[in-house]
Amino acid sequence: MKFVSFQLNGNESYGVITEDGNAVWNIPAVALQAKDLAIPATLLEGIQQGEEFFELVETCLTFAKELEETKDILLPIEGMEWLSPITRPKKNIMCVGKNYRDHAIEMGSEKDIPEDVMIFTKSPTSATGHNQTLLLHENITSQLDYEGELAVVIGKKGKGIKEEDALDYVFGYTILNDITARDLQKKHKQFFIGKSLDTSCPMGPYLVTKDEIEDPQKLNIRTTVNGEIRQDSNTSSMIFSVASVISTLSQGMVLEPGDIIATGTPAGVGKGFEPPKFLKSGDEIEISIDRLGNLKNKVK
Amino acid sequence: MKFVSFQLNGNESYGVITEDGNAVWNIPAVALQAKDLAIPATLLEGIQQGEEFFELVETCLTFAKELEETKDILLPIEGMEWLSPITRPKKNIMCVGKNYRDHAIEMGSEKDIPEDVMIFTKSPTSATGHNQTLLLHENITSQLDYEGELAVVIGKKGKGIKEEDALDYVFGYTILNDITARDLQKKHKQFFIGKSLDTSCPMGPYLVTKDEIEDPQKLNIRTTVNGEIRQDSNTSSMIFSVASVISTLSQGMVLEPGDIIATGTPAGVGKGFEPPKFLKSGDEIEISIDRLGNLKNKVK
Repeated sequence: MKFVSFQLNGNESYGVITEDGNAVWNIPAVALQAKDLAIPATLLEGIQQGEEFFELVETCLTFAKELEETKDILLPIEGMEWLSPITRPKKNIMCVGKNYRDHAIEMGSEKDIPEDVMIFTKSPTSATGHNQTLLLHENITSQLDYEGELAVVIGKKGKGIKEEDALDYVFGYTILNDITARDLQKKHKQFFIGKSLDTSCPMGPYLVTKDEIEDPQKLNIRTTVNGEIRQDSNTSSMIFSVASVISTLSQGMVLEPGDIIATGTPAGVGKGFEPPKFLKSGDEIEISIDRLGNLKNKVK
Repeated sequence: MKFVSFQLNGNESYGVITEDGNAVWNIPAVALQAKDLAIPATLLEGIQQGEEFFELVETCLTFAKELEETKDILLPIEGMEWLSPITRPKKNIMCVGKNYRDHAIEMGSEKDIPEDVMIFTKSPTSATGHNQTLLLHENITSQLDYEGELAVVIGKKGKGIKEEDALDYVFGYTILNDITARDLQKKHKQFFIGKSLDTSCPMGPYLVTKDEIEDPQKLNIRTTVNGEIRQDSNTSSMIFSVASVISTLSQGMVLEPGDIIATGTPAGVGKGFEPPKFLKSGDEIEISIDRLGNLKNKVK
């Protein structure tokens, strides 16, 4: 299933994309019509509910497909106001630094290739959705940069997770743009400030459940800016796999449903070019990952 | 006012400490008795409610003091099960790294004194309360260390806050022990993993409202381990003041009520000794800050 979160008449809702990809079943609206069906109000709450949530959603879909009147229930994608699949994460987004060899090198040299996984975080206030405008923050940075990444959403509580079991703890996958103010990242040494500006974490468009992704380490990932290819790689090039990152993080810290882990970016960020290609007003960034769609945002 | 959060009959509650410091007014229990008084269920929700919350609490206290029967309403401190004042933060705890010159030097040398504020984060899952047991995590670290710190809780939403206005955005202050696995901190470069182990962020005992703290930069701070003084300093020695940290953080990122900022630790951490004095099972850590009380925890 491809889940989405969106805004409708000023309220947050969520749904499942139809097979042709042109419309969304508005799940809470279906549940409302199917009187005795209590369903979580947000996708995050659904993820936190666990297995039962899938059954509820299936029941909703079966019910919805029988309806004759689908106003407010089957919504066209066209013109939808997208939100991040998890609109407001319950903790900071955890991000792997320098997880592709060629990116580590473009940020410095061979000696920047990490031997152990490096994790920093982005504030949940930085989350935004597909098609939403990204702020340029010109008053505090002149080096805003993009980073296309595969992100993982945890579906099950776990601690001390073994690498071979780690993918069982995944709910699904999405695309994440780890927008970074390079000057602030450098100035403040630890990455948090330069990584947490408002609107610096677009996610989406969909949260795709793990059953649709045979192997998260075999996905093409590509970033374009105004149509120009900047990043073009495959998740097979990660130094630390999705499973190994989940395992490492969970050794001393409990992981919870709804946790988001961004798995690092390949070479080709703006800072990697000579001269650097930082973002400017009007730039349109598009990140594509196999089976996960295209995450598009415009900078202003 | 000195707010506390605690566990009673398996449920989270919160209250205000009596003037003699020996008991707690259980605020939600008072509100329940004063039939028509709707009050937030947790201290965090109270902080998020803003000014109105103080009025509600005052009304509760006036009502409570008239009661003849105070069972479940006026609770002795003795034997209370303390929780972190904010039991489950809504985002990671933001922490200033190396904010006291002498600590920066003990962690390396003069060149480790930062020119710009350095912020890393701790997972909200690491939060725990006064008197709660701290896990040693022996399977993944042999270098667990304490760091006594003044922590600030934000009370009002703000962005682009000027340094001179910054303290208006504070709800109150508490003590925080920024427990750190030094080996993991070093191994993973960015600090998040080594700083986010479960139970690695005890806070409390109280959350003291800002009206009781005339100047957050004039507070003695002392840490003892098994009665031996390890850290003994004053918040006047911070490189970046509370106000300047709030201002810097808010330039590109909105701050929200309930946000927690730990303001760094003075010299005297275990790693600073030769040989180092890392924590071991049975150690009792006590951090004292003027007007904020003593935060005690035992390691196991």
